[in-house]
Amino acid sequence: MRNNAGIKVFAPASVANLACGYDIMGLALEKPGDEIIARLSDAPGVRITKITGAKGRLPYEVHKNTGGYAAQKLLEFLERNDVGIELEIHKKMPFGSGLGSSAASAAAAVVAVNELLKRPLTKRELLPFAVLGEQIADGAIHADNVAPSLLGGIILVRDNATYDIQRVPFPKGLYVCVIYPHVEILTRESRGILSPEITLEQHVKQSGNLGSLIIGLLNSDFDLIRRSLQDIIIEPQRAKLIPSFYEVKNAALGQGALGCSISGGGPSIFAITDNSLVAERVGEAMQKIFHDKKIGSNLYVSKINSEGTKKL
Amino acid sequence: MRNNAGIKVFAPASVANLACGYDIMGLALEKPGDEIIARLSDAPGVRITKITGAKGRLPYEVHKNTGGYAAQKLLEFLERNDVGIELEIHKKMPFGSGLGSSAASAAAAVVAVNELLKRPLTKRELLPFAVLGEQIADGAIHADNVAPSLLGGIILVRDNATYDIQRVPFPKGLYVCVIYPHVEILTRESRGILSPEITLEQHVKQSGNLGSLIIGLLNSDFDLIRRSLQDIIIEPQRAKLIPSFYEVKNAALGQGALGCSISGGGPSIFAITDNSLVAERVGEAMQKIFHDKKIGSNLYVSKINSEGTKKL
Repeated sequence: MRNNAGIKVFAPASVANLACGYDIMGLALEKPGDEIIARLSDAPGVRITKITGAKGRLPYEVHKNTGGYAAQKLLEFLERNDVGIELEIHKKMPFGSGLGSSAASAAAAVVAVNELLKRPLTKRELLPFAVLGEQIADGAIHADNVAPSLLGGIILVRDNATYDIQRVPFPKGLYVCVIYPHVEILTRESRGILSPEITLEQHVKQSGNLGSLIIGLLNSDFDLIRRSLQDIIIEPQRAKLIPSFYEVKNAALGQGALGCSISGGGPSIFAITDNSLVAERVGEAMQKIFHDKKIGSNLYVSKINSEGTKKL
Repeated sequence: MRNNAGIKVFAPASVANLACGYDIMGLALEKPGDEIIARLSDAPGVRITKITGAKGRLPYEVHKNTGGYAAQKLLEFLERNDVGIELEIHKKMPFGSGLGSSAASAAAAVVAVNELLKRPLTKRELLPFAVLGEQIADGAIHADNVAPSLLGGIILVRDNATYDIQRVPFPKGLYVCVIYPHVEILTRESRGILSPEITLEQHVKQSGNLGSLIIGLLNSDFDLIRRSLQDIIIEPQRAKLIPSFYEVKNAALGQGALGCSISGGGPSIFAITDNSLVAERVGEAMQKIFHDKKIGSNLYVSKINSEGTKKL
């Protein structure tokens, strides 16, 4: 007899391309996120039995589905091709939003399968399989959404090829506002717009900010975080894809945000603040801009999520 | 009556362009370094009365001399144009070597003058004047040698224009080997060889290493320091200016160095190790390569200098 209740797992949204941390730095949010329920079944292999919240836009074919593929790769690694697993995917966050939706599904799937199998691997060891799953949606091997969604916190990716990631220490009081305007940008398109070259001068400036951001986070030096949380390379190129980007950014900074930039490949915009009251004000100011332009939006305000993907 | 003994100050050599920290990260050595003796005199203004160890290659004209100019700028800021100061500059390190010789003289000069005037400024506040002095030799405003020489430790420069610098925490056990082969490269030439553009991919990889290096230093994670202490952008372009560079680097890594790259604009080469025994072995191996090629060299092995410029 199988336990039909199964295992229910939550994986949070994440903000990648953290300003000066393009392609290498991301953080996890408390909300929104995806839920996956995994159950053992008698027929070997992974099957997706239910998808909700995706408006028919996510495939049931396992090898085309980020969660399904991640689960399959994990089973293969564990040499457990005898095991049958059914996945229910409940999308509870927008996709194509720049909030790491695919990454969350992949992270939830590997944690759910690992739990079902009585945790043969640590969470950290699950990372490669979740990255492989997310790759199906993103087209590239990138851990900067998956790693924070899986492990929580702020994560720096040294090298995607070897899954070499590090936790970045951060002050407790940080809040993140993310606004998702209802405009769609595909990750592939958002990458395509970027110039493949930058100047050495831009590199030096952006690197100085990245290093200082890490030191600011380490030392709870909010003024330094404010000076460092800038993106002089990617944001100027992608801002044009997001209506009213600079108005929203100025509104956030005007209300006291430490920094504000594009979340992932957009169109979501994130702002970081040093407390929850400022976060509420910043979020409202950002949303008002879109409201005034008759653009619908979702606003998410939360602390940085230290836990990552978790069993519910 | 003036105190004719004056004030004697030591400022250490420094390693800038710390691998992935091109133009933004440097560290101070225990040795070599420069000494400056400053004395009050009755005639207002700065005068350079003696220079030793420079083989006639450093100017006595105050506005052309890094130490003299730095001292003058400091007096101007303090509105102490009534004060007369005589400087003796004793070069005890090679210049044109990539060891921050100009920076050391500038740092020594401002500290000596500040001491003579009973410390109107903190050491940190002296930074801008030392940077202005070093600019005379370097042709650009850069704090990545001056800041470590003045303040000690490992320093990250967020922004040269605002002298926005940060201390990077580091493990106690780190040793630095620096070898200076007797080949001259001018800083201006060494800058001129660099391509003004890099790829976005190079930027991402170098940034991932920079961030991870800082986290590795913070956490005393020597394996992470080893993986991160790389320069994929500048070193490949400048290596050709230094005879046998890759042989020396391979010798250092072969003896257990955590990393090895070009110090400043070269021709000196630095290696970082996690203890003094490895440092001795690494230093000998590096020097043997030059010895076998009949190239003279100076070898310096020391801990990272935490103190910076100091009164003797």
